[in-house]
Amino acid sequence: MARFTLVCSECRARYGEHEVRYVCPVCARAQEPGGPTRGVLEVDLAELPDRWPARSMSEPEALAAFLPLRSVRTLPLLSVGGTPLLETPALRRTFGMPRLWVKDDTRNPSGSTKDRASQLVVAKALEYGYDTIVAASTGNAATALACLAAAAGLRAVVLVPASAPPAKLVQMASYGARLVPVDGNYDQAFELSLAASERFGWYNRNTAYNPFTIEGKKTAALEIAADPRLGGPDVVVVPAGDGVIVSGLAKGFADLERAGLVPRRPRLLIVQPEGSGALARALRAGAAAIAPEPGARSVADSLVVAAPRNAFMALREVRASGGGGVLVSDEAILDAIGRLARSTGVFAEPAAAAALAGLEAALGEGLVDRDERVVLMVTGTGLKDIAAAARRVVVPAAVPPSLSSLESLLPPQR
Amino acid sequence: MARFTLVCSECRARYGEHEVRYVCPVCARAQEPGGPTRGVLEVDLAELPDRWPARSMSEPEALAAFLPLRSVRTLPLLSVGGTPLLETPALRRTFGMPRLWVKDDTRNPSGSTKDRASQLVVAKALEYGYDTIVAASTGNAATALACLAAAAGLRAVVLVPASAPPAKLVQMASYGARLVPVDGNYDQAFELSLAASERFGWYNRNTAYNPFTIEGKKTAALEIAADPRLGGPDVVVVPAGDGVIVSGLAKGFADLERAGLVPRRPRLLIVQPEGSGALARALRAGAAAIAPEPGARSVADSLVVAAPRNAFMALREVRASGGGGVLVSDEAILDAIGRLARSTGVFAEPAAAAALAGLEAALGEGLVDRDERVVLMVTGTGLKDIAAAARRVVVPAAVPPSLSSLESLLPPQR
Repeated sequence: MARFTLVCSECRARYGEHEVRYVCPVCARAQEPGGPTRGVLEVDLAELPDRWPARSMSEPEALAAFLPLRSVRTLPLLSVGGTPLLETPALRRTFGMPRLWVKDDTRNPSGSTKDRASQLVVAKALEYGYDTIVAASTGNAATALACLAAAAGLRAVVLVPASAPPAKLVQMASYGARLVPVDGNYDQAFELSLAASERFGWYNRNTAYNPFTIEGKKTAALEIAADPRLGGPDVVVVPAGDGVIVSGLAKGFADLERAGLVPRRPRLLIVQPEGSGALARALRAGAAAIAPEPGARSVADSLVVAAPRNAFMALREVRASGGGGVLVSDEAILDAIGRLARSTGVFAEPAAAAALAGLEAALGEGLVDRDERVVLMVTGTGLKDIAAAARRVVVPAAVPPSLSSLESLLPPQR
Repeated sequence: MARFTLVCSECRARYGEHEVRYVCPVCARAQEPGGPTRGVLEVDLAELPDRWPARSMSEPEALAAFLPLRSVRTLPLLSVGGTPLLETPALRRTFGMPRLWVKDDTRNPSGSTKDRASQLVVAKALEYGYDTIVAASTGNAATALACLAAAAGLRAVVLVPASAPPAKLVQMASYGARLVPVDGNYDQAFELSLAASERFGWYNRNTAYNPFTIEGKKTAALEIAADPRLGGPDVVVVPAGDGVIVSGLAKGFADLERAGLVPRRPRLLIVQPEGSGALARALRAGAAAIAPEPGARSVADSLVVAAPRNAFMALREVRASGGGGVLVSDEAILDAIGRLARSTGVFAEPAAAAALAGLEAALGEGLVDRDERVVLMVTGTGLKDIAAAARRVVVPAAVPPSLSSLESLLPPQR
């Protein structure tokens, strides 16, 4: 049993696990409608192991000492995480970066990094005795909740913008979640889910609002840091919407540093679309807080938020790491889908391919050296949004099944 | 270096690796147009290890002794296989089967079991010095080839029926494969690819025609058999189209039996759609050969073949295992997508969900006992064919972002 307290990321007040459920009640008083979540809580484990576990970092037995759970037996039996950290020979050659890696989080159960957060939230829901979990999401978090809740036998209610890609809607409904498409944007769905969890007594999985979403995502950092082939990253490039994945990574590396298992933390470099870039703009401007972008839009639907919910923590952690933020165009994101797939075999959704586009931008700005150990977080599979990928590929017209018609399609061979 | 010979599955003639490339030249003379492939070759390894490898069976170092490769260094760096073997508490309760497992092969790089075959074919292409690989496929095999070829820096040419689900077409094109949609069925694409590989000197990855497709798929059997939690399966339920996955599983279990690592092989139970059931019908009729079904069709597009290419070997291996075949309706397949997703968190394409539909049929026919150790092979992700899943879920109309409109959608709570 891993004991822990909850610490307010703003005022540093400490709470026992059962004193508060979501956010710091003091700082939450400053909450502005549609603004970043105030009083986001961090999990502070009473003890951390002083050595790497003997087992692979993706196994529940290894995770036990790092997660705020009474028992790993509440983790859904769905093998979340443990995703490959890929060497990428062709990409390394293209960029002249001999130590470039791809963390292929498309290989999670529902196809995205969000499964890491949902796994922990579902485990805590079982501990706390909830039978229903609600989430608002741009898509992947709701799908991940639907998936992990199904595996655990819990009910999920998911509130998503009606504009989410159809594949995400069908996938979450297939898991049996009660799907509520909201005629509004993500921010409106978010507010509605808070009201719903209060009204109906459901456990709320909203990203950052539920502190275990951040804590759950730290498992990606544990896996990256534990990989002996890499030897500890210098830089992790991570797409950002609400800023929770980057905060989770920061928490993982911070826990490992505190435990004495890594000598230092990597720089965290976030990537945002130009059309939804509040975090990156604040980082680049040296601003203390983000300026909400009410008209946010991008082909990378998973990254579209007017006001990043975890802005305070994300800005602090990226800065503390010595990292920064870059902005990329939708065109660059769409190009990156094919470039990543063709050079690595990893097929990513726009939000995930943004990591590659961001790396290019960062190289151009001198934010990354080519001989550094760099990990691209690829956070969701391209199968989530075929329409986006289709914008950059040509599916030729069908040809008759004859050698001559095939030959007419091909360039001269060798 | 694992030495091996190639043995004709029909006449048992033996060939050195460089004597033949694809099929037994003697038996191939009996090839009928559009019929099962004649003279399919099996890989016969000169030596097998006499103990389980110390490392996890999904790691190249462990696989080395079981695969016909000069070196595992030609395997693409994409972490194929090593997919979870899932306990499924809810499904076990539903069926009263306490030892039911799901082998979640949706978690492969391109989302299907076909990656196992493509991995080995790509490695052999590198050994043999080919720069281009061609495949005809209903979709997943071509996608897998495109994916693994991309990871290895090889060119892929993929011939698929123009009717393949759009997600598969876009995915394979995104990997940079040269996509040739054929105005015809899978069988016509198959014939065309044979002509193309001969004309252009490309390596051919057609299933069964290239013996390494069967050999590559055996890795799923190695992983299942090596899992100490299961203790060896009694039955493996596997969807069948061309009959190559089931033949690959059979080869894996046979290798392990020959090596003395398992005491016996499991019964192999194949599942086919009623609209494309040549193998299952032959098994049920006790027929020596299949009767082609020229009008084959099913919602499970991956299983639609008029004449299963690996019919001879599949019939022999299923019979030798003491297994059999069942037929399931498209309706049952569509129902199974949601049943599997809701009870396990595994979202499967129709062909893969057919395993669950097939289990139900087999229980009804008394082909499986409820206390046996049963593994369902779930061979491809539901994200490959959202349109099929969408036929069984309701995406409600969007509601305004208000608690009262949400409440109107929900049944009374507790």
